[in-house]
Amino acid sequence: MRTGKLTNAQLQRIILSELGPNRGDVVLGAGIGEDCAALRFGEEACVLSTDPITAANSRLGQLAVQVSVNDVAAAGAKPLGMLLTVLAPPEATIEDIRKVVREAAKEAAAQGLQIIGGHTEVTDAVRRMVLSSTVVGRAPLGALVSTGGARPGDALVMTKQAALEGTAILAQDAAARLRDVLTEQELLEARALSDMLSVLPEGRIAARCGATAMHDATEGGVLGAAWEMAEASGLGLRLCAERIPVRPVTRMLCGALGIDPLRLISSGVMLIAHPNGEALCETLREGDIDATVIGNFTAEPERVLIYEGREEPLLPPEGDEIYRALGAP
Amino acid sequence: MRTGKLTNAQLQRIILSELGPNRGDVVLGAGIGEDCAALRFGEEACVLSTDPITAANSRLGQLAVQVSVNDVAAAGAKPLGMLLTVLAPPEATIEDIRKVVREAAKEAAAQGLQIIGGHTEVTDAVRRMVLSSTVVGRAPLGALVSTGGARPGDALVMTKQAALEGTAILAQDAAARLRDVLTEQELLEARALSDMLSVLPEGRIAARCGATAMHDATEGGVLGAAWEMAEASGLGLRLCAERIPVRPVTRMLCGALGIDPLRLISSGVMLIAHPNGEALCETLREGDIDATVIGNFTAEPERVLIYEGREEPLLPPEGDEIYRALGAP
Repeated sequence: MRTGKLTNAQLQRIILSELGPNRGDVVLGAGIGEDCAALRFGEEACVLSTDPITAANSRLGQLAVQVSVNDVAAAGAKPLGMLLTVLAPPEATIEDIRKVVREAAKEAAAQGLQIIGGHTEVTDAVRRMVLSSTVVGRAPLGALVSTGGARPGDALVMTKQAALEGTAILAQDAAARLRDVLTEQELLEARALSDMLSVLPEGRIAARCGATAMHDATEGGVLGAAWEMAEASGLGLRLCAERIPVRPVTRMLCGALGIDPLRLISSGVMLIAHPNGEALCETLREGDIDATVIGNFTAEPERVLIYEGREEPLLPPEGDEIYRALGAP
Repeated sequence: MRTGKLTNAQLQRIILSELGPNRGDVVLGAGIGEDCAALRFGEEACVLSTDPITAANSRLGQLAVQVSVNDVAAAGAKPLGMLLTVLAPPEATIEDIRKVVREAAKEAAAQGLQIIGGHTEVTDAVRRMVLSSTVVGRAPLGALVSTGGARPGDALVMTKQAALEGTAILAQDAAARLRDVLTEQELLEARALSDMLSVLPEGRIAARCGATAMHDATEGGVLGAAWEMAEASGLGLRLCAERIPVRPVTRMLCGALGIDPLRLISSGVMLIAHPNGEALCETLREGDIDATVIGNFTAEPERVLIYEGREEPLLPPEGDEIYRALGAP
């Protein structure tokens, strides 16, 4: 099979169809584009998200915290604790494991949560270090935000710029192919975008300001995440490609590699549905977070990408450009 | 490094030392032998446990549910939901994934919980299917049972018989080497012990009856788990080897492979500390659960294994006999 997450169609057919209806305690169960699950605990929701880290990366521990914290942030919840599983191949050293755990503990502390448990195992089932993190957070039941809560007429707001994460990864892993188009300084700046991948601050602000839906853009990029939000909300969407902010370094890098920055992995971008998008952008900017209205949700079911005045269908995400750029199967 | 979980000494030195003290919301954090973490939600504890499944196994999906549910049961909590991550190698088929998810969903339903989220990915980071499950449950704050709650004078009770899980696995995976000592019928019976690996029923009864500590015996077997309970509780332990029930088929199988059934992976066994061990055994037997007093906790720090009247030190677990039997590195 092709490397990467399952497509949403596969997910629906193979996974979601097997799971049955939500039980009484389940406030938010598995669904297309849903970042989190949530269970009722009295007047609060216990919000949970889990993600594996399978790609080779020099900052595995940090990444394991970020991806799951971002999902919990997208539910409008406050992250409290994390379970971390480390699977190390037999050729790894105890120092390799210590480095990952230390890095994760440091990142967790920086984001205000604690590693509360996990599992560490040496196994020949993995070829390289694989992590699995689960973050648990809390939100008042009424304040929970899902991917599928958008309403017709809501604006679609995005924070920061598209493909920050993909830019940082490719500036590292495809550096040899980029030296003709980017200077060493530009490559360094591109890699430093990995410091911008948290969506915890905007999640907090948007949840407080009445966001109707949120979704953290990861594999599939901004376009994939926007489609997932519309799908989860059962709505149509009109999306203006030109309004999606893309950094010049991302444009140069994607141009050189022949990939689309709007379909490139984009942690650090929060997509937010809100009845008054411009007012939300204003508030986010006051919190020093770049924010832009890029489209709006519609009762009509069509999902449309508008580019230079022409309209084309916005299709479900099919894999991420990162795999194409790195030549994975 | 050697295949398997880290030793407790490594765990302390490499992992636990990095994690820092528990924060306000954390009722139960990471520790030697602790099966679960727990967070305060109002008057309830949200109990969490995570486990990977890395060994080749024909019943991966079922196992992923069982191991994490058992941990939550050991905390005296009721399992509610599960997050399931499936990492499949590129050569796996969509049907392989469907089989695992279907099996997990079925086992979860049988144990009264729901799969509420997760992640499915195809990745060359794994050589075979690897799962990671996180189970979340609830318990009234005051009813939470930890591994480290035993008190001096408490009896140590175990349910069922040692090495049920190891017996079932080896009857499958080492069958060729066992045909001289076990009949086909005995091998079939041994494999069927995999139906006895849940400790949810005894966890519920023991928590209701005033268990001071519980621990689910997995890698390291009954002796390893008993040592971990004493360590987590900061106590000594006197353990009678002869009292530990071992099925005849397990004895024959372990004899043939030259391994110790008391140090062989033992899911299905719950270790329970209780001030009145015989009364607890009585109650468990009324619930059709075999139970035996096998030792007692002491204020004196020595941990002692008593065998044929001789005493020897009970040492910390060092790997599981399953790896020795299967010839892993």
